[in-house]
Amino acid sequence: IADGDAAQLKELVGDLHEADVGDLIETLDADERGPFVQLLGEDFDFAALTELDESVRLKLLEELPAEALAEGIGELESDDAVYILEDLDAENQAAILDQLPYSDRVQLQRSLDYPEESAGRLMQTDFIAVPPFWSVGQTIDYMREAEELPDTFHEIFVVDPGFRLLGSVPLDKILRTKRATKIAEIMNEDAQPFEATEDREEVARSFERYNMVSAAVVDDAGRLVGMLMVDDIVDVIQEEAEEDLRALAGLGDEEISDDFIVTARSRFTWLVVNLGTAILASLVISLFEGTIEAMVALAVLMPIVASMGGNAGTQTMTVAVRALATQELDARNLWRVLRREVLVSLLNGFGLAVLIGVASAMWFSNTALGAVIGVAIVINMIFAGLSGLMIPVVLEKVKVDPAIASSVFVTTVTDVIGFFAFLGIAALWFNLPL
Amino acid sequence: IADGDAAQLKELVGDLHEADVGDLIETLDADERGPFVQLLGEDFDFAALTELDESVRLKLLEELPAEALAEGIGELESDDAVYILEDLDAENQAAILDQLPYSDRVQLQRSLDYPEESAGRLMQTDFIAVPPFWSVGQTIDYMREAEELPDTFHEIFVVDPGFRLLGSVPLDKILRTKRATKIAEIMNEDAQPFEATEDREEVARSFERYNMVSAAVVDDAGRLVGMLMVDDIVDVIQEEAEEDLRALAGLGDEEISDDFIVTARSRFTWLVVNLGTAILASLVISLFEGTIEAMVALAVLMPIVASMGGNAGTQTMTVAVRALATQELDARNLWRVLRREVLVSLLNGFGLAVLIGVASAMWFSNTALGAVIGVAIVINMIFAGLSGLMIPVVLEKVKVDPAIASSVFVTTVTDVIGFFAFLGIAALWFNLPL
Repeated sequence: IADGDAAQLKELVGDLHEADVGDLIETLDADERGPFVQLLGEDFDFAALTELDESVRLKLLEELPAEALAEGIGELESDDAVYILEDLDAENQAAILDQLPYSDRVQLQRSLDYPEESAGRLMQTDFIAVPPFWSVGQTIDYMREAEELPDTFHEIFVVDPGFRLLGSVPLDKILRTKRATKIAEIMNEDAQPFEATEDREEVARSFERYNMVSAAVVDDAGRLVGMLMVDDIVDVIQEEAEEDLRALAGLGDEEISDDFIVTARSRFTWLVVNLGTAILASLVISLFEGTIEAMVALAVLMPIVASMGGNAGTQTMTVAVRALATQELDARNLWRVLRREVLVSLLNGFGLAVLIGVASAMWFSNTALGAVIGVAIVINMIFAGLSGLMIPVVLEKVKVDPAIASSVFVTTVTDVIGFFAFLGIAALWFNLPL
Repeated sequence: IADGDAAQLKELVGDLHEADVGDLIETLDADERGPFVQLLGEDFDFAALTELDESVRLKLLEELPAEALAEGIGELESDDAVYILEDLDAENQAAILDQLPYSDRVQLQRSLDYPEESAGRLMQTDFIAVPPFWSVGQTIDYMREAEELPDTFHEIFVVDPGFRLLGSVPLDKILRTKRATKIAEIMNEDAQPFEATEDREEVARSFERYNMVSAAVVDDAGRLVGMLMVDDIVDVIQEEAEEDLRALAGLGDEEISDDFIVTARSRFTWLVVNLGTAILASLVISLFEGTIEAMVALAVLMPIVASMGGNAGTQTMTVAVRALATQELDARNLWRVLRREVLVSLLNGFGLAVLIGVASAMWFSNTALGAVIGVAIVINMIFAGLSGLMIPVVLEKVKVDPAIASSVFVTTVTDVIGFFAFLGIAALWFNLPL
């Protein structure tokens, strides 16, 4: 790249898959990426851009001249083009769209008009639609002749003259049917199309649940406007599962290639929110300053009570958040699950209480102290189980994402109850000052 | 069901998709599930069993007579059959296999002989393979005539007389090509087949990366033995992302339908491991008993230092664990990521140090105490960032799953360093006894 040797670079990159080219771009230094794409010129497959982290892609797009961009994007499948365009600001988006042929521009614009994270943004607007009265033979001949076909497809759609969706036929069905058969006879009318405005998470769940490979997308009048392919859905599924994982750990949508200021800022918010929890816990402890002064062993043991509750609460909460996300947990089985959580908490609470109680009693040669910490543990474990389940459920009810908000509340409960129960019971039992 | 009214039940369940039948079974009481399946008799689609939680499925399988089972499983696609059979114990497995026709039995047995979580277990053993010298027309005619075709497929494979894989042709390509063209001319020779023994996580990553819909599976001699379909891969992707989430929270592969004893036992292990961490932290605190007795405000504030470190460590660790799993983090960019984490820790450490320092100084009217906690926070945040990144990386290096083991170590570091730094600096600064 440094030598500007385009021919050699083309040879090296030559037949690489777009995903590999994407990887290659990410391993380059930031200032080599623009020249890399420009040297490749027409041999650069813009699909590789869809494989980049967002921050890398945006920076790279800024460096490329608008004409080259428009040309590269014009050659993409419509879903990839939308994927790249949607992150650009309105001005750059318009500049690129203006350079595209009219029909491409209209299609892309329409996709971009659908809400973010909707089926309309994900779909591909090239597809094959035939009337129901065609025969299998006619359909095959049409596909052999047609110029503007999507790169890959797994089913064709059947529409009426008003382009309203009537059904679909998978390709393997067409191949297995005699030429004379009418499309209407073999089409599948049961497959539900998706609305273009539908949330992509819902769409992904249906794909997964019903083992779908592609599906039709219709507008609000029932007209066929696009087709969804499983390869795009796979990315959605991966992203959605990952979103929960990140949210539970207090991470935004940071990427490993983000610079440190962006990362620090996005993580700081979460730390400050948790600081609130920690301060609340400190306030509870400060109620018992006199108690601790009189019996400093309490300060040594109190983190154990809080941390056991925190761990147990996190376990239950993680199960609950995922079960809500995959719709395995709902009003029908909430009661059953709640009962189970209480039993689990009791069982594990007693188990830990015995272990910790005996260890504490021996450590400080004080049987009563062992009993106190044991009781506190059981109490905190029960609250941990209840809050770990009910906080996500309630948040979901009031339309707050449980993955993002649950853990602050659960930790607050287990910290506050943990310190309060342990120090409070100790103060009463040993008749200590506050 | 209570009335044993099979006809009405059949009508109700009739055209439901297997996923919906699966859901229906799970909402039934445990003792209604067996009768439900038996009442449906031949109308019950055993594919619904693949949609059940493992514990529900195993219990249900035990209740059904072996002949009915064998018949139902015999009608399934081979990948679904393997999915159901692999969880059974050897004896039941053999009993069912014995009742199947010879060719089915051999195929299933071969799939079951591949290691767990391998491509061989996931694959479907029905596929279409043709010789390269056939024309497109011959191929289409063959598919129209053939009896034993898989239910759905998206590409056909090209093999030599020794059944070694030469290439593949997607169905849309066949449909778009003239009948006279030879298969050899349009086949894709680049697509890499998977080895049957390959780990399914690797396979899923390739599917996702290269946007694949189906792929060939070969044995160690390069002979075609099966075909992988994206719908099975979707489940793997979902499961693998979820596995990390669960592992980080200390959960095994529990399911929401498991009974409470199984759940309690699987979670208890994790709690006991974390108890070790908590006790270690207590030991550190106990070193400073005298210090705390002399200045009880330290006991009030110390959980803040530990918990801020814990949260920051969990953030970094979650990023690191996922980046390792998706291979976004490796030797090439470790140094860059490490530098970023240190900078993020410093920035957020100073931010939190100022907030907490000022608040503590005002609370206890003690400026020096504010300074001490500020310094302790910065120190703990740096250790949190370093351990959050390096512990997963080192665990991956020594072949321990970072998702499972990281959080115990990271919490240990942030607790121990947090308490030690805060109490230690306070003891020195204020010249307090130990």
